[in-house]
Amino acid sequence: MQLDQTTTEQLKELESSLNQQYIAFQNAGLTLDLTRGKPSAEQLSLSDALDGILEGNYKDSQGTDLRNYGGLDGIPEAKALFADMMGVKVDEILIGGNASLSLMYTAAQFALYNGVNGPDSAWIKEGKTIKFLAPVPGYDRHFSVCEHLGIELVNVPMNEDGPDMDTVEQLVKADPQIKGIWCVPRFSNPTGTVYSDAVVARLAKLPAIAGPNFRVFCDNAYAVHVIEDDAQALCNVMDAFRAEGTEDSLYLFGSTSKITFAGAGVSFFASSPASLNTFRNHLAFTTIGPNKIDQARHVKLLGDMGGLTEHMAKHAAILKPRFDAVLSCLEENLAGTGMATWTAPQGGYFVSFDGLPGTAKAIIKLAAEAGVKLTPAGATFPYGKDPEDKNIRIAPSFPKLEEIKRAMDVFVVCVKLATVRQKLG
Amino acid sequence: MQLDQTTTEQLKELESSLNQQYIAFQNAGLTLDLTRGKPSAEQLSLSDALDGILEGNYKDSQGTDLRNYGGLDGIPEAKALFADMMGVKVDEILIGGNASLSLMYTAAQFALYNGVNGPDSAWIKEGKTIKFLAPVPGYDRHFSVCEHLGIELVNVPMNEDGPDMDTVEQLVKADPQIKGIWCVPRFSNPTGTVYSDAVVARLAKLPAIAGPNFRVFCDNAYAVHVIEDDAQALCNVMDAFRAEGTEDSLYLFGSTSKITFAGAGVSFFASSPASLNTFRNHLAFTTIGPNKIDQARHVKLLGDMGGLTEHMAKHAAILKPRFDAVLSCLEENLAGTGMATWTAPQGGYFVSFDGLPGTAKAIIKLAAEAGVKLTPAGATFPYGKDPEDKNIRIAPSFPKLEEIKRAMDVFVVCVKLATVRQKLG
Repeated sequence: MQLDQTTTEQLKELESSLNQQYIAFQNAGLTLDLTRGKPSAEQLSLSDALDGILEGNYKDSQGTDLRNYGGLDGIPEAKALFADMMGVKVDEILIGGNASLSLMYTAAQFALYNGVNGPDSAWIKEGKTIKFLAPVPGYDRHFSVCEHLGIELVNVPMNEDGPDMDTVEQLVKADPQIKGIWCVPRFSNPTGTVYSDAVVARLAKLPAIAGPNFRVFCDNAYAVHVIEDDAQALCNVMDAFRAEGTEDSLYLFGSTSKITFAGAGVSFFASSPASLNTFRNHLAFTTIGPNKIDQARHVKLLGDMGGLTEHMAKHAAILKPRFDAVLSCLEENLAGTGMATWTAPQGGYFVSFDGLPGTAKAIIKLAAEAGVKLTPAGATFPYGKDPEDKNIRIAPSFPKLEEIKRAMDVFVVCVKLATVRQKLG
Repeated sequence: MQLDQTTTEQLKELESSLNQQYIAFQNAGLTLDLTRGKPSAEQLSLSDALDGILEGNYKDSQGTDLRNYGGLDGIPEAKALFADMMGVKVDEILIGGNASLSLMYTAAQFALYNGVNGPDSAWIKEGKTIKFLAPVPGYDRHFSVCEHLGIELVNVPMNEDGPDMDTVEQLVKADPQIKGIWCVPRFSNPTGTVYSDAVVARLAKLPAIAGPNFRVFCDNAYAVHVIEDDAQALCNVMDAFRAEGTEDSLYLFGSTSKITFAGAGVSFFASSPASLNTFRNHLAFTTIGPNKIDQARHVKLLGDMGGLTEHMAKHAAILKPRFDAVLSCLEENLAGTGMATWTAPQGGYFVSFDGLPGTAKAIIKLAAEAGVKLTPAGATFPYGKDPEDKNIRIAPSFPKLEEIKRAMDVFVVCVKLATVRQKLG
């Protein structure tokens, strides 16, 4: 069926049959969960060697005792490996603790209160509301960093090649209170978008418009997280900024959270040496330095970029059937109905699903009442408000394959039921 | 000799003979270091079992997969062990990352910008300079937290039983901008002071004077770090605050930095359940949660308070000869001279040395030029300014015993030389 060519009579019949299916699901007493973008136990087990991997050798290549205090920005081997992964130079990266979110929060707070270019550059000194651009749909934890810091978020549409740069440039030109933008340049959460070279090049020009205190918060969380072998590459982001002379304005983040252990990985922050230095001077007041032993464990497990790529291929082998299950169910049940669109990502952790405007909350409610938990409606938008109430983030990594299939069977019925009901008024 | 009973002639002779000794040290080409309060390799090796201790079991007692995301405030076993250690209830503690300094910085920043009792209580909202009391001599990293946040530090004398509470109470009564006080209640850095029950009881009454937004920042960094078997105990700090109904105003910190690995331990924060909850809600914006695997490693290594106490006895066996070396050298060379006083701590990491006013910088300079590095003069005071230029923090934990003996031989000559030269003008 195609929604637009269906008569009211047919819709009523459809609703009745969908309702029967739905009630059957409700009666099955399911408890399924597609909410969390977290790795499955199978994926985590790929890194089980981490505990004990040092075999009693607690020194790094320089002979530093990794057990003791000292070192604010990471051990040389970890910098080398993750600089390679992030496409930056060794003097452009520092290694943090287990959460890149902490680095992002600290960086935003630092820019707000301490200033990226000394105390006078602190955003708070401007005495006006500070704003960030939020390409949407996006990642709720990015948005909540700003919300908690009192930074106002301004939605920007996400195109197939990245944020809508025409809109971004217009906004930045018009409003000097816009001091930053959130970006996930490869396999964006949740759309799976890979930013085109042209978009990255335009991002690199933004500081020339916005001024020296503007920062591009670029969370390359899925830098190496391919699902398809021939997944689209991302250009070297740092090089693009260097080409414009704006590398001070790039704050690049990453982590091994979805490479090794989600809750016990290592994180990193990259920027120009000058910009990195300013941030590192701030960090010195806030910590004795990161856990160097965990860094050494990671280097020993992953080795170099070759080892890292092999490791990621094992993740892909586990993830691909799960994504295929989601996509084939959507394809079989919703393609050509006019009820929905969705992304078919080549990497990352999510499928971004758009129902008809005004249906997302209803779909999620129906699914919940049939035992399938979905990310709350609006979660992919600042302040939890999806202006069209249509986006749903599907996270297939964590559940078992059978559970995903089962959950998706429920999901598509909920989509149809909510849509038909909406049409019927 | 006794300084006050020495003639100018005798002093000149003394200077000449000390100078000869000093030059001999200079010519020996020493490179010794008494600056850092960090554990020795021998101490760190007590915890070498940590890497690999889980033997592939990445679950906690509740069956939680410790490798994955989840859990903002620590695993139950870690809360139980460290609540015991800190003398608080399990619902009064959260477990953080590898640096209690980060928890302290975050807590101070939270109180300043977010507010301990909601946004209206944020210290910054008062629009006036915020102040903290700093018992001196004290710990430079505490002071630098405040300095970096723009919080003004007000010196308070440290007595033998803790901060001078008459002064503390007067200051707090007189100045509502004083919002906190730094405390290291057992084996203070650097004086080794153990706060008496009476001092703790008076600290617990402070919030009644200072108001509900006041916080006692109590860094119990050396809670179990005894050197002498019969070391003075500290009363239960939380109970003392509970007795006054001021437990919301206690921010209690601790870590395993000087129990297991200095750079790879776990940290904790304790307060009343209500106060802990407010802080935890803030943390949720700044991190995905702490490394749970490291917590499990620590619990497995230390077990319970019995295991922890046994473990600390091994540290004491390593530390005691080092402290004895410092103290016996000071005793043999400076007792009865009128040139200096020093502490004989029963625990902790430091000997606090006071030369005559105006000699500390000179002593440290002389020592440096003879190859013995000491903590910079003034480091134990806010803004690096020792008003009397007399305090020197001696940290004997890290060097080998022979190095300490050698360094102390140099030190006492430097003390005498600087003192005699001062007397001679």
